[in-house]
Amino acid sequence: MIRYHARWVVPITRPPLRDGTVAEVGGRIVYVGDRDGAPPGEDRDLGDAVLLPGLVNAHTHLELTAFRGLLEDLPFREWIARLQRAKEAVMSPERFLDAARLGITEGLRAGITTYADSCDSGTSLQAMRELGVRGIMYQEVFGPDPSPARVRHSAMALHEKLLALHPLVTELQHLGVSPHAAYTVSDPLLALVARSELPLPLAIHVGESESELRLVRDGEGPFADALRARGIAVGPRGRSPLALLLRLGVLESRPLLIHCVQVDSEDVRAIAAAGCGVAHCPISNAKLGHGIAPVVEMLDAGIAVGLGSDSMASNNRMDLLEEARVAVLVQRARAGAFDALSAHRALELATLGGARALGLAHRVGSLEPGKEADLAAFDLLEPCATPSYDAATALVFALGGQPAKFVSVAGNVRVWEWRLRGEDPALVARVSETGEALMRWRERGDG
Amino acid sequence: MIRYHARWVVPITRPPLRDGTVAEVGGRIVYVGDRDGAPPGEDRDLGDAVLLPGLVNAHTHLELTAFRGLLEDLPFREWIARLQRAKEAVMSPERFLDAARLGITEGLRAGITTYADSCDSGTSLQAMRELGVRGIMYQEVFGPDPSPARVRHSAMALHEKLLALHPLVTELQHLGVSPHAAYTVSDPLLALVARSELPLPLAIHVGESESELRLVRDGEGPFADALRARGIAVGPRGRSPLALLLRLGVLESRPLLIHCVQVDSEDVRAIAAAGCGVAHCPISNAKLGHGIAPVVEMLDAGIAVGLGSDSMASNNRMDLLEEARVAVLVQRARAGAFDALSAHRALELATLGGARALGLAHRVGSLEPGKEADLAAFDLLEPCATPSYDAATALVFALGGQPAKFVSVAGNVRVWEWRLRGEDPALVARVSETGEALMRWRERGDG
Repeated sequence: MIRYHARWVVPITRPPLRDGTVAEVGGRIVYVGDRDGAPPGEDRDLGDAVLLPGLVNAHTHLELTAFRGLLEDLPFREWIARLQRAKEAVMSPERFLDAARLGITEGLRAGITTYADSCDSGTSLQAMRELGVRGIMYQEVFGPDPSPARVRHSAMALHEKLLALHPLVTELQHLGVSPHAAYTVSDPLLALVARSELPLPLAIHVGESESELRLVRDGEGPFADALRARGIAVGPRGRSPLALLLRLGVLESRPLLIHCVQVDSEDVRAIAAAGCGVAHCPISNAKLGHGIAPVVEMLDAGIAVGLGSDSMASNNRMDLLEEARVAVLVQRARAGAFDALSAHRALELATLGGARALGLAHRVGSLEPGKEADLAAFDLLEPCATPSYDAATALVFALGGQPAKFVSVAGNVRVWEWRLRGEDPALVARVSETGEALMRWRERGDG
Repeated sequence: MIRYHARWVVPITRPPLRDGTVAEVGGRIVYVGDRDGAPPGEDRDLGDAVLLPGLVNAHTHLELTAFRGLLEDLPFREWIARLQRAKEAVMSPERFLDAARLGITEGLRAGITTYADSCDSGTSLQAMRELGVRGIMYQEVFGPDPSPARVRHSAMALHEKLLALHPLVTELQHLGVSPHAAYTVSDPLLALVARSELPLPLAIHVGESESELRLVRDGEGPFADALRARGIAVGPRGRSPLALLLRLGVLESRPLLIHCVQVDSEDVRAIAAAGCGVAHCPISNAKLGHGIAPVVEMLDAGIAVGLGSDSMASNNRMDLLEEARVAVLVQRARAGAFDALSAHRALELATLGGARALGLAHRVGSLEPGKEADLAAFDLLEPCATPSYDAATALVFALGGQPAKFVSVAGNVRVWEWRLRGEDPALVARVSETGEALMRWRERGDG
């Protein structure tokens, strides 16, 4: 039994405890409560820190970490096209893998223990294993051409990838599938993947941009133009991207719905009725000019909402405390109301909300006996956290950007005294080299 | 001559330089350019870092740093009232001074070298001197009662305070005056202070909240109710708070205008015509539910806009890189456009924009020979900053929350290798004690 003591313990499912203790045995939490009432065990005192459940990143693309800051200030359609060209021209499996390793390194140092990762290259599952974090790697599927031969080919290629990846699956690292989005996947392929018999979790980008809404609703706009240029027929497909997923039966598989900025009240009701979780990415959405998702309305409808950093190509930081802070700021700015979203609620989104959205709430997301010991702690002795009256407020409004003092995943200590155990000292240099290759590609004007 | 070398030098007034050098003699910049072309001198190599002008905090209240996180999730009128009661019940000159010291400590460690500080207690001028930072302390004036006797009394009390503070003024630390706002200062007192013969810079909160707009435009709302409860007659005073300042002649003194959220296009034209600078506080404005200031419109009108953290009671961090990032995010979210505000422009607001708004652009805000050596550097070897393609993008989108590696004010090194020189090791504990006194006050229910 190991007993972690801290000035504040934030269980999420009940109010913060001052001078609290979390005890774990074999990776499972057995006690959360007052320091004095803890059962006997080996002591690890985190001191003037706040101890909370490990943060849950409900949406990212780890393989794109080397693209941090490469493609700025571009229209969405062009941003995607250049990203795709850069991936093909410069990246290799080893470079994608290093990028994923760096993303998890950054995330672990920011207290993130669970990663819901959409991945094209298939490399992030291995990176998660190496770094000992919890996660779901959703293997991405693309294919906008609705012809039966192309759909069949895409589906078979997906199955081959899943078979090859399956041996990497463990108790902590899971496999899922992500048909990318309505603007990159045809209706028949969407339906085929979503309704297959595979017992794998699904995720899909939906309602991210106005361009996507225009494509689906009107068959117009930059995405429609790009598809037509490839010889693919385009017409109206539904009232909204979300309505399209409903019509195709995709929602019946309860996919994780990523973004949901362009959703109206009818869409919100449909999401709630289907029991889907939502990954809210406030920084990416704002930065790319997509707007602000109606998170308050989704929460009011009872939808499980988590927070996602999205990829480092569009964020450019993986820091869920910052994500929680910006979630609060943009919801309050949007509503013109000081009480639109509280720090406590935002912290719940960054932990239990994400776990619920990913179907992992029975294992992580809160500090409760029986759950697994995914833990993170942040120091309160910094000037920027002084004074600290309330642990949730300090975490969301003051501690963003600060490194975690301690992180464990299922009891396995990953960060201790601010140091990541087993950190590869050459990783930053290797990803910087990938960055220089990407920059040379950009300077050649190929992008 | 000291030569600072860094992987990137960001002069602001011209494009970033790779492998650049800034040389200074006696606190003044004498060279900005390639490393190879620098004149001979003593070398200080900042390594894989980005070197830029010291950040300019265009609005804060240093004395309120002990209130970080104390008063959350309250309506604006109640927030102000409780803040005022807490100040009176718990704070002392020594506690205000320590709070100001902690605020500057936090700011210096985040690369902030200039502080435009609105101060009631009059303590922050001394704190600025002790910590060797540049700043203007605007002595605040309150007085909503328009009776001639009260106005005269407030004006005389202000003059006494200014006389007492005057000996603390130096080349780096200046004195100014701030009639607080239209909801706390009567029209005759506003006019008297703004049009006095004192050669001191002015600052005023204006157009922060809808409550303020309703008070001035309609004589209604929570501020009006509170004034009436004190026996003060209230009626409409102008089309908007900004229009009121114009009518009273306040704008003729070119005050720094703080917030400007509730301003319309006519107000923006008036601000530009008067040549006033604006302190934009995006995090505070969003967090308190006030909304998003029309910054893009103000910049288009040629107004000098700086970024302010506002007080730690409403932010709760003093970090101008985070402020720049949120400025970008909320402008893009508001406009639904990826190009509403760029990282480069936001970085300019955090440096030269603030210096222009404060009338200090002839001395600081950019790296140019002849200007004073207010410098800040941030390390690029962190995972969260890898890769870094562009110095401005890395600063605004990736380096918020990171500690500065090096800071100097007029050549005086304040931070070296992440350590603040002469830091008081007992300061955090003293401000935490003030925090506990404030918490006891809150728990007694007095607030």
